[in-house]
Amino acid sequence: MNAEIIAVGSELLTPQRLDTNSLFLTDQLNGLGVEVTTKYVVGDDRERLAHTVRRALANAEVVILSGGLGPTEDDVTRDAVAMALDRKLVFHAEIADQLEQRFRQAGRTMAEVNRRQAFLIEGAEILPNDRGTAPGQWIEESHAAIMLLPGPPHELKAMFTRQCLPRLERFVPKLVILTLVMRVAGMAESDLDQTISPVYKKYENPVTTILAGDGDIQIHLRARSATEGEASALLAEVAGPIELLLGDRIYSRNGEPLEAVVGDLLSKHHATLSLAESVTGGWLAQRITSIPGSSNYFLGGFVAYSKKLKSELLGVSEEILEHHGAVSKETAEAMAIGARRRTGSTFALSITGEAGPEPSEKVPVGTVYVGLADAAGCLVVHRQFFGDRARIRVFATQMALDMLRKKCTLVAV
Amino acid sequence: MNAEIIAVGSELLTPQRLDTNSLFLTDQLNGLGVEVTTKYVVGDDRERLAHTVRRALANAEVVILSGGLGPTEDDVTRDAVAMALDRKLVFHAEIADQLEQRFRQAGRTMAEVNRRQAFLIEGAEILPNDRGTAPGQWIEESHAAIMLLPGPPHELKAMFTRQCLPRLERFVPKLVILTLVMRVAGMAESDLDQTISPVYKKYENPVTTILAGDGDIQIHLRARSATEGEASALLAEVAGPIELLLGDRIYSRNGEPLEAVVGDLLSKHHATLSLAESVTGGWLAQRITSIPGSSNYFLGGFVAYSKKLKSELLGVSEEILEHHGAVSKETAEAMAIGARRRTGSTFALSITGEAGPEPSEKVPVGTVYVGLADAAGCLVVHRQFFGDRARIRVFATQMALDMLRKKCTLVAV
Repeated sequence: MNAEIIAVGSELLTPQRLDTNSLFLTDQLNGLGVEVTTKYVVGDDRERLAHTVRRALANAEVVILSGGLGPTEDDVTRDAVAMALDRKLVFHAEIADQLEQRFRQAGRTMAEVNRRQAFLIEGAEILPNDRGTAPGQWIEESHAAIMLLPGPPHELKAMFTRQCLPRLERFVPKLVILTLVMRVAGMAESDLDQTISPVYKKYENPVTTILAGDGDIQIHLRARSATEGEASALLAEVAGPIELLLGDRIYSRNGEPLEAVVGDLLSKHHATLSLAESVTGGWLAQRITSIPGSSNYFLGGFVAYSKKLKSELLGVSEEILEHHGAVSKETAEAMAIGARRRTGSTFALSITGEAGPEPSEKVPVGTVYVGLADAAGCLVVHRQFFGDRARIRVFATQMALDMLRKKCTLVAV
Repeated sequence: MNAEIIAVGSELLTPQRLDTNSLFLTDQLNGLGVEVTTKYVVGDDRERLAHTVRRALANAEVVILSGGLGPTEDDVTRDAVAMALDRKLVFHAEIADQLEQRFRQAGRTMAEVNRRQAFLIEGAEILPNDRGTAPGQWIEESHAAIMLLPGPPHELKAMFTRQCLPRLERFVPKLVILTLVMRVAGMAESDLDQTISPVYKKYENPVTTILAGDGDIQIHLRARSATEGEASALLAEVAGPIELLLGDRIYSRNGEPLEAVVGDLLSKHHATLSLAESVTGGWLAQRITSIPGSSNYFLGGFVAYSKKLKSELLGVSEEILEHHGAVSKETAEAMAIGARRRTGSTFALSITGEAGPEPSEKVPVGTVYVGLADAAGCLVVHRQFFGDRARIRVFATQMALDMLRKKCTLVAV
């Protein structure tokens, strides 16, 4: 069963405002096994909104409108839905009385315009609003259910949960939806897709979506079925082969970010970490310390931005800096070893590179070296990234975290 | 002139993800005098998307699609727009060659699927993408302009600004729109609004918008007029009184972030900076080094997360740590003085605090001390923030940067 969601309000078409009610509604609808197929944001324009409602009704069995139920001239949702359904608006004196009483209880006089909120579309059930003045409406039309809900999130949420969910549970055939999120670091989206598409393309259920961020790919599998057992089996049928194909490139099977996975591994091994950052300027430390409890395994780090501090704080020799340059395998190695020695940590990661926009004298923009030191010595990996300053820096942090993850899971880097 | 925006991607129809590109696009379009009348979010479904494109073309003269230009099977935007316009898709060998070259430069082999990205809709102009592999497309159809843009915000923004804006400026009837962005640190949104609303509420042109972020408020003034001189005079009429009311609390009059303003001040004074971070774990260093050329004034920093490193690296005495605790005025002072001494910088900033979620034994969650050391000594300021871990950490970095800004502009902190 499909749903479409229409957010109404000209303020939602400005550069400052987003419709967020649809996230809540989508979550609730998915919980009932209903998929959202299109979302719309429409201004306070009766004709355009009526047209949108007609289109949504042609596509979906559940249509939800939020906003535009207020008392003013530019609240057009009631009118537009009545127009789309070709039904009349009917004045309900008892709703007007309740509104008036509500204002009186608050010690205020109801403005005449509020009487507009006492009009219901012919055949609609009223959905009481205990958090505001705008009542909602529930309408069933041939094979579709249409809901008119108020725009303020706390009113909408309360009304949907109390009034719409019980009605929808009767309206919608029962279905369970399960989601699995795998995350992969350090792979190009196209390479990953070429590897796993022969598997997931054979299945329409679960639905597979691939989301690529900066050096980070999420694979979302979503299975629908009548029972949890069946949905879970459907997921396993696709997830199993994908896991075999990607192997240890999958760093998370529950959607956790890489810094959390690395933190868990360090805790498990009772290991500690220190950092020596140059090009990423503290970004890696910031990611690691974004995880609550990171003080249990993270000792600290150096942001050695100048050559002088690389040598004074981390003991990178003048000779290495002169001879090989600040962005080099040798400097990365000396930085990691220096950080580990200065802090006494189990592991130390170092990052040096050139993020631009201007290239340094010796290396092209996008050059990155990451060092990983432990008691046995130091490994350095070189990569060439492309993109702007922010992209190169975040890719470098991702690369460093993934090297440490592989080290902790005893996988070849 | 009207525009409609279509965000493409099944992930944007989940409870976790919102289309935010449309905010940027709306801002840009409004800047040209173009109004956005409807926004859509459609999944990776060719037929449904083609239908949506047809409808948008019936309503608006400008239609922008974002996303769905990647190399995989579920990237359907090219196909769907071709279907909606009843045009063919044409393979361009030179685009495929460029893509291949790009992969080669990064030391990788292009996957076969990437060749999909070399198909253009008949009659389309290619919009080069210098930040990713998906090229965009610009199509003019009778009285409408249609743009296909990549989904990742940094790619979309760069492509729109460089490729689409100049074309739109020719396509859209002329109107001059000038924008002024003032930024303010360390003020509550409600206090700021109470201070300046008596000024800006008197004017409908310029339009004033207040955007509050984490410890950072932007005041956008946007004036529209037939000539630049008129628009500029309209701006000045509102900006002048606002500047008088807010005084040195305004840190930027051109929209630059605080880290850029502080960087400019340090450069101007030929001063250098070092950092000693605990609770912010490298975030302040990351902000400072996000500015190109920051190596001219930023020497480096310490992320002294453990007590041991606070004492070993920064020389915070055992007595202070025992007696006053790691989150204290005394520790902040010793950290800043220690960082300055170790690096020889003109200024040193230190941050220590408790970001939670669990409070430490001695201080409540949200406690932050910032130290600012120079040749004359060290100033420490204490603040109590509210909110979650990320919010407390970013507020602390904002507070530290603003202290240094005031120091460099000789304003009382």
